[in-house]
Amino acid sequence: MTIDAVLTRIDAELPQAIDRLMELLRIPSISTDPAWKGDCARAADWLVKELTSLGFKAEIRPTPGHPMVVARHEGPGPHLLFYGHYDVQPVDPLNLWTREPFDPAIEETANGPVIRGRGSSDDKGQLMTFLEACRAYKDVNGTLPGNLTIFFEGEEESGSPSLIPFLQANKDELSCDLALICDTSMVSPGVPSIAGQLRGMLKEEFTLHGPRIDLHSGHYGGPALNPLREISKLIASFHDEDGRVAVEGFYEGVHEVPEELKRQWENCGFDEAEYLAHAGMTVAHGEAGYSTLEQQWARPTLEINGLWGGYQGAGSKTVIPAEAHCKITCRLVGDMDPAKVRAAVRRHVEAHLPVDARVTWDSDLDGAPAAVMNTARPEFEAARQALSDEWNREAVIVGMGGSIPIAYYFKSILGMDAMLIGYANDDDAIHSPNEKYDVKSFHKGIRSWARVLDRIAK
Amino acid sequence: MTIDAVLTRIDAELPQAIDRLMELLRIPSISTDPAWKGDCARAADWLVKELTSLGFKAEIRPTPGHPMVVARHEGPGPHLLFYGHYDVQPVDPLNLWTREPFDPAIEETANGPVIRGRGSSDDKGQLMTFLEACRAYKDVNGTLPGNLTIFFEGEEESGSPSLIPFLQANKDELSCDLALICDTSMVSPGVPSIAGQLRGMLKEEFTLHGPRIDLHSGHYGGPALNPLREISKLIASFHDEDGRVAVEGFYEGVHEVPEELKRQWENCGFDEAEYLAHAGMTVAHGEAGYSTLEQQWARPTLEINGLWGGYQGAGSKTVIPAEAHCKITCRLVGDMDPAKVRAAVRRHVEAHLPVDARVTWDSDLDGAPAAVMNTARPEFEAARQALSDEWNREAVIVGMGGSIPIAYYFKSILGMDAMLIGYANDDDAIHSPNEKYDVKSFHKGIRSWARVLDRIAK
Repeated sequence: MTIDAVLTRIDAELPQAIDRLMELLRIPSISTDPAWKGDCARAADWLVKELTSLGFKAEIRPTPGHPMVVARHEGPGPHLLFYGHYDVQPVDPLNLWTREPFDPAIEETANGPVIRGRGSSDDKGQLMTFLEACRAYKDVNGTLPGNLTIFFEGEEESGSPSLIPFLQANKDELSCDLALICDTSMVSPGVPSIAGQLRGMLKEEFTLHGPRIDLHSGHYGGPALNPLREISKLIASFHDEDGRVAVEGFYEGVHEVPEELKRQWENCGFDEAEYLAHAGMTVAHGEAGYSTLEQQWARPTLEINGLWGGYQGAGSKTVIPAEAHCKITCRLVGDMDPAKVRAAVRRHVEAHLPVDARVTWDSDLDGAPAAVMNTARPEFEAARQALSDEWNREAVIVGMGGSIPIAYYFKSILGMDAMLIGYANDDDAIHSPNEKYDVKSFHKGIRSWARVLDRIAK
Repeated sequence: MTIDAVLTRIDAELPQAIDRLMELLRIPSISTDPAWKGDCARAADWLVKELTSLGFKAEIRPTPGHPMVVARHEGPGPHLLFYGHYDVQPVDPLNLWTREPFDPAIEETANGPVIRGRGSSDDKGQLMTFLEACRAYKDVNGTLPGNLTIFFEGEEESGSPSLIPFLQANKDELSCDLALICDTSMVSPGVPSIAGQLRGMLKEEFTLHGPRIDLHSGHYGGPALNPLREISKLIASFHDEDGRVAVEGFYEGVHEVPEELKRQWENCGFDEAEYLAHAGMTVAHGEAGYSTLEQQWARPTLEINGLWGGYQGAGSKTVIPAEAHCKITCRLVGDMDPAKVRAAVRRHVEAHLPVDARVTWDSDLDGAPAAVMNTARPEFEAARQALSDEWNREAVIVGMGGSIPIAYYFKSILGMDAMLIGYANDDDAIHSPNEKYDVKSFHKGIRSWARVLDRIAK
């Protein structure tokens, strides 16, 4: 049986696969800081060389920002697009790192060996699992598996400014049958996870204007409208006593989680106590009547991310400020329409303003609906079986509280469904000092893709 | 009659009196900035020289900060202490001044001539009204009026750090029968005003701690306790629907304004519409059932002066911050005890904390009770008559929304009542660019003190 030979090859080749990953990790491809622009290009070049050596027809595609990498292998079966990103987060605060972020190494830990270094998990280690699976497949079979397009971007950690225009300009080339995305984590260590739904996001910011000018709290305290008090009352009015968003129309398009999926989630190995304890909490503070996982994956939120006004320095200042400010993000689920939610939030705020107050809105903040995967596609069941075989544990269709806009754009711009499979763990410290990727994640990740490709790429 | 001769002398001497004030105004005695330390000393020296030439026994009294000026004239009658301060506010933003702040001049305006320059109103112009009244009295009578101690400080605009130790160390010398303070304004232009009550102040600051660390609003949004939301709910809970402070025990020691005083206030010339319009308001937002003046002068407040947490930069950040912060000042009236109010506020906050949250308090912030003048003293009625004679308008015992700690310290440390009479107007722009003092305030202020001294200093 071919797959066994491929898996054996993967096991034998692991040290070399790790060496190749290390090469890529040594390139400091920080996308947000122009100082590293040349290194981003170097990482893209490295990938093109690697893909070419594997038999792909691979190219750099320049953008106004960092280059895209596109590679093509024509073969039988459904046309699959694999997505990852080669750029990484900045490394500050550098003093909290236990080693140079771009001098990666294997380190032994209580939970087994890890690959330590910036990008080891997010996303270089993850994207290399796919390339190494392709390599092993080719080593054994003499050809790459199936009908593949590889698409890597270098701006994921800096807002992907070139992504939408690039997808629009290369719509025909990039519109495949299904996208595979490896940029997510497992719900719990050892539990293979396929993301079935990602929450969307709406950003808002407003300023509540009260007095014409900053006032003295002696001369005006009492008669004056205090914007800090008024914005607090407004924010308090956003939720009811049960933690439910009290904005009229907010829940339009929200669906309850199907019982079958709820049962999967209940048995997905999610460690609620550890999740809460990590944040220093003893209970979940979201909507009453919903489990912690539902609150995180399947329920919308109206979250205050920033709040400020008046005096913030040392000591005291007897000021009643003219303004107060608030930054909001709403996480969206199901069929919630960002434009409608925005209108509902704004109506709520306007309706709750006291006399002599007015509000202005930041008009530059965007929104994207939730990405709900088409989990009825046969590839999802095939992947579930493949992952279950590899991890000796039933794979789970999980939700994700965060937003990965790429899945939404693949659907809205290219009309392409996506399947998100990743092998990261929650303790990988992505975006933080001492990022790591378990050797187990890397090794079994490669094997997982080999098994998935074996089932769906032909 | 002696007083007529003194008043005539004041009128004749006005140009020279203005020249002397200009000399003092040219000294940039900004107390808060060490760069001007030498000028503060120069202003104190100038006053000692001036007082000595008037026949006072005047001295510089060094402190760890800027020097005090103490002058003495022994004579018949009650021992009166006159207080003022020779230091001034900084002048920034300098570009908003229409002339050099320390190059004062007479300017003609629609409301008559004004003396323009930093300190013209606060407090050099005001304190000089007293000295010029003394000068005219001496010119006519050959001796200074009554039994006088003059006490000037140079740190009023920078928190008076040396004041309390100085009062304690010089208790015997400075404990007189009554203090006269000239650092206040008239309730309305042309309406002579004696301050009968000043609100006290309590300062508080707290931090609401929620999650152990900043959280990602995707991964934790929903289950997470959000300190920004919780602090908003807390602040919203501080007041009820009628604008009344909803903290249990807060109103202990608050008294209703006596009907007689309320009637005086109703006829004191306070222009409510202009007061509100100046702040861009159409209604008073304080406690229902109390007039705007009562809200400002006679009712306590719990005011939010600063509020912050989370992300305040450009764009959006998907953070649930670990902490939120709030600065509070309470204005106190009547017999409210700052320590009790502090305890009540803290109890309220603690009682309203959700599970998984805790609060820490800044322990360095002070408080002082309201200063309620002993208006039953005969000097108040004498001063009312004197002021009414000068301004052809019945003088009013007003309240003040602000806090002038000196009156409280005179009482608590020296056991001395105080009477606050000032001639400033609300449009004097004290602490702001283009400070001015009406020539009328200066001229009639000198005449007013002459009349008051004529009635009480013998």
